[in-house]
Amino acid sequence: MDINGVQIDDTFAEGFPIKLARVIITAVTERWALEAAREATGFGTSVIGCSAEAGIERILTGDLTPDGRPGVSILICNMGYKNLENSLLFRLGQCVLTAPTTAAFSGMHDAEKQFDTGKKLKFFGDGFEKQAEMYGRNIWKIPLMSGEFIVEQNFGAVDGVAGGNFLILAQNQASGLMAAEAAVDAIGKLEGTITPFPGGVVASGSKVGSKYKFLKASTNTAFCTTLRDDGVCTLSEDVSSVFEIVINGVNKEAIQAAMKSGINAACRVPGVLKISAANYDGKLGIHQFPLHMLMQ
Amino acid sequence: MDINGVQIDDTFAEGFPIKLARVIITAVTERWALEAAREATGFGTSVIGCSAEAGIERILTGDLTPDGRPGVSILICNMGYKNLENSLLFRLGQCVLTAPTTAAFSGMHDAEKQFDTGKKLKFFGDGFEKQAEMYGRNIWKIPLMSGEFIVEQNFGAVDGVAGGNFLILAQNQASGLMAAEAAVDAIGKLEGTITPFPGGVVASGSKVGSKYKFLKASTNTAFCTTLRDDGVCTLSEDVSSVFEIVINGVNKEAIQAAMKSGINAACRVPGVLKISAANYDGKLGIHQFPLHMLMQ
Amino acid sequence: MDINGVQIDDTFAEGFPIKLARVIITAVTERWALEAAREATGFGTSVIGCSAEAGIERILTGDLTPDGRPGVSILICNMGYKNLENSLLFRLGQCVLTAPTTAAFSGMHDAEKQFDTGKKLKFFGDGFEKQAEMYGRNIWKIPLMSGEFIVEQNFGAVDGVAGGNFLILAQNQASGLMAAEAAVDAIGKLEGTITPFPGGVVASGSKVGSKYKFLKASTNTAFCTTLRDDGVCTLSEDVSSVFEIVINGVNKEAIQAAMKSGINAACRVPGVLKISAANYDGKLGIHQFPLHMLMQ
Amino acid sequence: MDINGVQIDDTFAEGFPIKLARVIITAVTERWALEAAREATGFGTSVIGCSAEAGIERILTGDLTPDGRPGVSILICNMGYKNLENSLLFRLGQCVLTAPTTAAFSGMHDAEKQFDTGKKLKFFGDGFEKQAEMYGRNIWKIPLMSGEFIVEQNFGAVDGVAGGNFLILAQNQASGLMAAEAAVDAIGKLEGTITPFPGGVVASGSKVGSKYKFLKASTNTAFCTTLRDDGVCTLSEDVSSVFEIVINGVNKEAIQAAMKSGINAACRVPGVLKISAANYDGKLGIHQFPLHMLMQ
Repeated sequence: MDINGVQIDDTFAEGFPIKLARVIITAVTERWALEAAREATGFGTSVIGCSAEAGIERILTGDLTPDGRPGVSILICNMGYKNLENSLLFRLGQCVLTAPTTAAFSGMHDAEKQFDTGKKLKFFGDGFEKQAEMYGRNIWKIPLMSGEFIVEQNFGAVDGVAGGNFLILAQNQASGLMAAEAAVDAIGKLEGTITPFPGGVVASGSKVGSKYKFLKASTNTAFCTTLRDDGVCTLSEDVSSVFEIVINGVNKEAIQAAMKSGINAACRVPGVLKISAANYDGKLGIHQFPLHMLMQ
Repeated sequence: MDINGVQIDDTFAEGFPIKLARVIITAVTERWALEAAREATGFGTSVIGCSAEAGIERILTGDLTPDGRPGVSILICNMGYKNLENSLLFRLGQCVLTAPTTAAFSGMHDAEKQFDTGKKLKFFGDGFEKQAEMYGRNIWKIPLMSGEFIVEQNFGAVDGVAGGNFLILAQNQASGLMAAEAAVDAIGKLEGTITPFPGGVVASGSKVGSKYKFLKASTNTAFCTTLRDDGVCTLSEDVSSVFEIVINGVNKEAIQAAMKSGINAACRVPGVLKISAANYDGKLGIHQFPLHMLMQ
Repeated sequence: MDINGVQIDDTFAEGFPIKLARVIITAVTERWALEAAREATGFGTSVIGCSAEAGIERILTGDLTPDGRPGVSILICNMGYKNLENSLLFRLGQCVLTAPTTAAFSGMHDAEKQFDTGKKLKFFGDGFEKQAEMYGRNIWKIPLMSGEFIVEQNFGAVDGVAGGNFLILAQNQASGLMAAEAAVDAIGKLEGTITPFPGGVVASGSKVGSKYKFLKASTNTAFCTTLRDDGVCTLSEDVSSVFEIVINGVNKEAIQAAMKSGINAACRVPGVLKISAANYDGKLGIHQFPLHMLMQ
Repeated sequence: MDINGVQIDDTFAEGFPIKLARVIITAVTERWALEAAREATGFGTSVIGCSAEAGIERILTGDLTPDGRPGVSILICNMGYKNLENSLLFRLGQCVLTAPTTAAFSGMHDAEKQFDTGKKLKFFGDGFEKQAEMYGRNIWKIPLMSGEFIVEQNFGAVDGVAGGNFLILAQNQASGLMAAEAAVDAIGKLEGTITPFPGGVVASGSKVGSKYKFLKASTNTAFCTTLRDDGVCTLSEDVSSVFEIVINGVNKEAIQAAMKSGINAACRVPGVLKISAANYDGKLGIHQFPLHMLMQ
């Protein structure tokens, strides 16, 4: 199978369950909603070493936000609900409450799981915080030096999917990276997914295990083209660089749509030779995303 | 005292010691160095609830970086060296090693305190990592799918200063925020300082203590203009919004230069009424930055 | 009438006919499509002194572009078709053909008026250009040093509307400008309109005529708050700054949607006091956009 | 000769004289100074089809601008002083006077050639404009709806140099473009030069003359890799894409510094094979920039 002349490997991406919450951040302008969202989702690439996996889902116009202001929706992901509750509390408290002109609303109103993050943040008001009904939501108004911070009392969370992915095999680093950028741009317009790595791109795909006992994951040696002389690289000679796009999403369908859109974008960049995907032979994750089925 | 018609309060900012490290991140283009830097410094506004205080120091042209590529220097700050070592390991490992085309170098070669962060990150290479001397530095080459990640073996750290600050009292939220933006832009060009809050701006200045026993800090009620009717706001009637710029830096002189440059910028924005600063009557911090002396 | 506490003047914007063409620019990434679009629409605020009025309509994902790559659609406007044909030829030839990795397609396939701009640009190929059918379109492939430039043979154009507008009356310059930014962000997501002035905002609204005979238009003195002492400013004392958003669009409905969306956004920014609109008592333009009817 | 493993051709860039003016645009924030600068320098790639060649020289902090606000300096270039005077009048009048919160100052105070552009723009004030001395300069205050527009009476201009350039020969389009981006980033920090093409990059290098008599310039067929089968491409087989960086500057030294900085940056991008330069065998221009002498 090929798309626009780029070969699509007959393999599958392997995903696993994760808990995630959507937060809608609004501000006086789109620019300031983005600043808060970037801070709140930073240091959030992988739960291996970050307190959460987090990213910007998409930009929202005023007709899609509770208060009619420009907004950004973000997804915050953790392996369990307890950690997710912590992530919400600290990331909203430190990076959104502190950001100029922002408000924070739940983006998963109907979820069964609800955290009273707003109720916990309200204590910052030192007794002057006030509960109210606004935009059909139960909110807290917390007085700040710069104005009032509006935060919803409850934030919903759901069972989502982590580890959606695809690999871009390219003639050189530049074409692989440009294809990755085009893919991330495309996915960034969709609802329901994030690409949590820096700029949406993973430079350092990993394999499970390592020769060092204390390390659970290490560089994916079979895909490291600088290891050709060491005899461990299994890629064909024409490939000299591989980037990975990792995708978390609210459900399987969202991941599929993002993978499809991202792969289509990547395949339009000259120098891209092949699209593949990372999996663990189905041993780790419960979700499988076969590329050929996806791209039909 | 006034600058450009804006009154400068006869008060001082109060700072305290912090440990900080400078990391130089380079990449194929400035844009990609910035992506890595933003991820690595995200969720890093205040050690009250973040694992570090972190920010972008400035953009570096190729003549200022070890490998001649475009770069960004960042500062990572923690209260103690042990936490700082952890921050370096996790923020570089999760957000720079994983970012496309990056390399990471120490920006404090001559510091007495040195962490072998690069030596710890090298294990990701699963035995295929190689030590070398490059650019006059002791580095590790770690094979990645996308190419090689170059990381310096040791990263230096020094005793720095946190909590440099000034307050912008404005006619309304928009003029205060625009002045804050102008101040952050000015400080962002200087060497030696960061403004770790979202977009460099603090919307939620705090006071020590709270009526809630479990909370060590709460909203600075005396500066909350929405609390005028409650009788706790001490600001004059013409002020309706206050933003704070918090500055961490490598030493006192860097903080002073940043405060001066930022205040000068803020005072050129229409609607700014007064510049003040946050302190704890000299009880908390050992560094004092009197505004009048600074702005002479 | 008021929206979110901001008074809406009972007046109307006055528009007039203009000819306009939509061009779809695609490129390897969204970033490079934007660079070409910005260059091609620059120096294009008003036909009073620019060769065209031009602006970015919106960003297009790959599923909305002929070649499946990321794109940007722009509108180019002139008073007559002859000037518009010239604008297309020179702006596409100088700013899109010269831009890295771009292609240019007509965004008005079904328009009755069609210009053979692509057929004229093809001569740059020095005889090596080739005609082809691609993406269901009649295109030319022009060989460039960096690759091939794909340009559609014909570009359609229609009778559009210029001069849609509204005025933002604000407590100070910063709040007026932030409201203008929020309005432009909102309009920028819509199909069918552009805001051709710098950053989408007009700082210098004008009136017809001048005390200087050689000048057809001059500053709108009645709205200049620095002329209060001269007795010519008719604005109430609380207003200190007025910004205008000027909108061109493919038809009346597109202008209406943009005005509505922009006004709604502006009215959510603190410090905005009133929304009004510029007209010439119905003497100049044939299109009237009454604010109250619009905002119902 | 090679730099970082990239071969530097033993050839020279050929430049010719041009007239140019520097304008310093300031605004309330850097962002808004940039918006005005982008509009004022748009549709300004080549005087072959644009009314001027124009670009952003660099970003200026408040300590480098007359009014202490953030600024951007731009260069506007024309073949003769008469056209340059027109360009200044129309580009400042349509794109800077109209832009929010801007002021415009001469960046060439000591030049012998001076245009009274400010004196001509002042008529927009309809008699309410006022002359004054501010920041040690002779300026006009023109009342606008949004505030006052400050413009210097005279703008200086000098004999500069156009057509500085170098060529990036690359393995594929993506690596060539990334190298071009890195080069433009580097040049963009320097004083005295601009790269007037879209995003600073030329995709369509040309040769003098054409098989079509009415065309003075056409695609540089010898460098078009898609014309290999036609037997006209003279590039070696490994090259598949060539980008050009064209540089205008205030003098020869500025061009030399920019070329050196840009080439150094480009040579650090993987996939770049060779650096060359465009010339006309010394027949067209009076300035020669030999690459080997430059890069020593």
